[in-house]
Amino acid sequence: MSDLFENTERTELSQMGEFGLIDHLTQNVKLYNSSTLKGIGDDAAVVSHGDKKTLISTDLLIEGIHFDLMYVPLKHLGYKAIMVNLSDICAMNGSPTQVTVSIAASSRFSLEALEDLYAGMLLACDKWKVDLIGGDTSSSQKGLIISITVLGEANEKDIVYRSGAKKGDLICVSGDLGGAYMGLQMLEREKAVFLQTPNIQPQLEGKDYILERQLKPDARMDIVEMLKALSITPSAMIDISDGLASELLHISKQSKVGVKLYEEKIPIDPLTYDTAREFNLDPTVCALSGGEDYELLFTIPQSDYDKIKGQPDISIIGHITDESEGNYIVSKSGNVYEITAQGWNAFKQA
Amino acid sequence: MSDLFENTERTELSQMGEFGLIDHLTQNVKLYNSSTLKGIGDDAAVVSHGDKKTLISTDLLIEGIHFDLMYVPLKHLGYKAIMVNLSDICAMNGSPTQVTVSIAASSRFSLEALEDLYAGMLLACDKWKVDLIGGDTSSSQKGLIISITVLGEANEKDIVYRSGAKKGDLICVSGDLGGAYMGLQMLEREKAVFLQTPNIQPQLEGKDYILERQLKPDARMDIVEMLKALSITPSAMIDISDGLASELLHISKQSKVGVKLYEEKIPIDPLTYDTAREFNLDPTVCALSGGEDYELLFTIPQSDYDKIKGQPDISIIGHITDESEGNYIVSKSGNVYEITAQGWNAFKQA
Repeated sequence: MSDLFENTERTELSQMGEFGLIDHLTQNVKLYNSSTLKGIGDDAAVVSHGDKKTLISTDLLIEGIHFDLMYVPLKHLGYKAIMVNLSDICAMNGSPTQVTVSIAASSRFSLEALEDLYAGMLLACDKWKVDLIGGDTSSSQKGLIISITVLGEANEKDIVYRSGAKKGDLICVSGDLGGAYMGLQMLEREKAVFLQTPNIQPQLEGKDYILERQLKPDARMDIVEMLKALSITPSAMIDISDGLASELLHISKQSKVGVKLYEEKIPIDPLTYDTAREFNLDPTVCALSGGEDYELLFTIPQSDYDKIKGQPDISIIGHITDESEGNYIVSKSGNVYEITAQGWNAFKQA
Repeated sequence: MSDLFENTERTELSQMGEFGLIDHLTQNVKLYNSSTLKGIGDDAAVVSHGDKKTLISTDLLIEGIHFDLMYVPLKHLGYKAIMVNLSDICAMNGSPTQVTVSIAASSRFSLEALEDLYAGMLLACDKWKVDLIGGDTSSSQKGLIISITVLGEANEKDIVYRSGAKKGDLICVSGDLGGAYMGLQMLEREKAVFLQTPNIQPQLEGKDYILERQLKPDARMDIVEMLKALSITPSAMIDISDGLASELLHISKQSKVGVKLYEEKIPIDPLTYDTAREFNLDPTVCALSGGEDYELLFTIPQSDYDKIKGQPDISIIGHITDESEGNYIVSKSGNVYEITAQGWNAFKQA
């Protein structure tokens, strides 16, 4: 057991970013099985146990870190927890087929609370006909912990990675962006008001769309099906969990290309726009950095332009450039700014 | 969103047993995909995305609930966390191929601590040539949380469920039992001494074997390979995580059969036996109820007896009877007792 002796140094985890930490911890990972087609580093891993390929992705959600039960009902939490995992399979251009769910809950939670959580999960499974095939429940010392793993399937030729974008490709996005973030801002504001004045009624009228974007997102399996119907295989694809800017940089880095984005092309719903203004926020920054929209961001060759141009739920927001040209956004006023993981730096013009 | 309204009743989770809770929560689970060959209810689910079948199992481990870092070094914890998942695939007569690992840690943990954890995991992966293909890391509000999902593969005809035992089959077990439990007793005793008198040295000399049984168990992939080499496909199989008695009752229930076990045939290592005596425990009760041995418990037709009888690491401990005959153990003195999930009830003779 001499190979089981331990380290004695100490580096604080807070010194490492999330991606730095996982890169660091997994740097010694070796792959042994020819059935592992893709390991760490995309929305899902790809496994071949037969002619169709198995996609797998997993998520660990912890109360107080990943969700706040003060404004997220458990049924919504269950629904969203499943949907964000299904979204990872969609982002590979695959079809989600099975999930496993493990739950740990402290004695603060009743059976009925967990029933609500499961009911929301099963509603999400039902929507896309995904099977819940395993998992378990246990107690926790504190709060609620949810671990979800999703399996999906795809033909090998249909699987889309983050790394396939080519110079000249069009950058497309489904739906609209920034809404989930503005929904979160609304809920955070009402929570702060409630904590100050518990008997006040929440002011959420007219905000249904952005609240639903935050509380009940949908995995865009319909877009995967639409792409199939249009005979389009994207060259690269990712789902927008962290914000448009951050996801574009993933594609840029993994495809070794540059990105040119046009601010005026970014799809933003009028309610998102107006609510952002109400909060004195820049709607474009909300779309670039907000995250949790779970829309699909993908690139297609220019030759597919005619197939996609009439689609109402797809926006063409820019194009792929040479790696040497970097990652930039052209503002409505025609200025050019570098894209950063935080969105864009409006003070640092290129 | 009216289907997202919540329950208002309250039933304490402590009123439900672990299996009762998961059965209850998953009672409404529907399966949609023909690729789902087996969902909830065995050691692993079985998915068909091609000619070979994919096995999947998942585990959520929480500090203070599932492990105690006072006496479990992180590298051992990582090793064991992987091995107990691989064991679930072995228990289906499959080969583990890939794992995903998600970690959440509070600021109490340093980078080096997580490096140790991962190093132990990768050591276990290396032992059985399993690929770590995904997962993530995040912070937790309290303690360490580990979520592991394992994939394995098997030909459909080779997969062994808990439900296939037939009247007359021989009941076999690999290795020896009760050691992991006695290792835990040793560690718990030394922890209690340490908490009282922190500068005292732990008294663990000569206990290496049972400590290793507790801290560094191995998935019995070698037994799966041996069975293949002997051309034996068990009729039912399960790994021993909760104790021999509890696992036998799973086979009995799911196969709709009875069980007759012989106390004198249960394999117990001399160190386990002597340590149990030292603790004033009945060694047979430790083997029946101890758990965490991760040995394989399986049934084979009597016609396979000649193939298995000479195998040094396999014990034949009883046979399968008709369901109406119940589940019993014959003691060394020839008395017959009913087997319960807690082991046996030595005061309630049949």
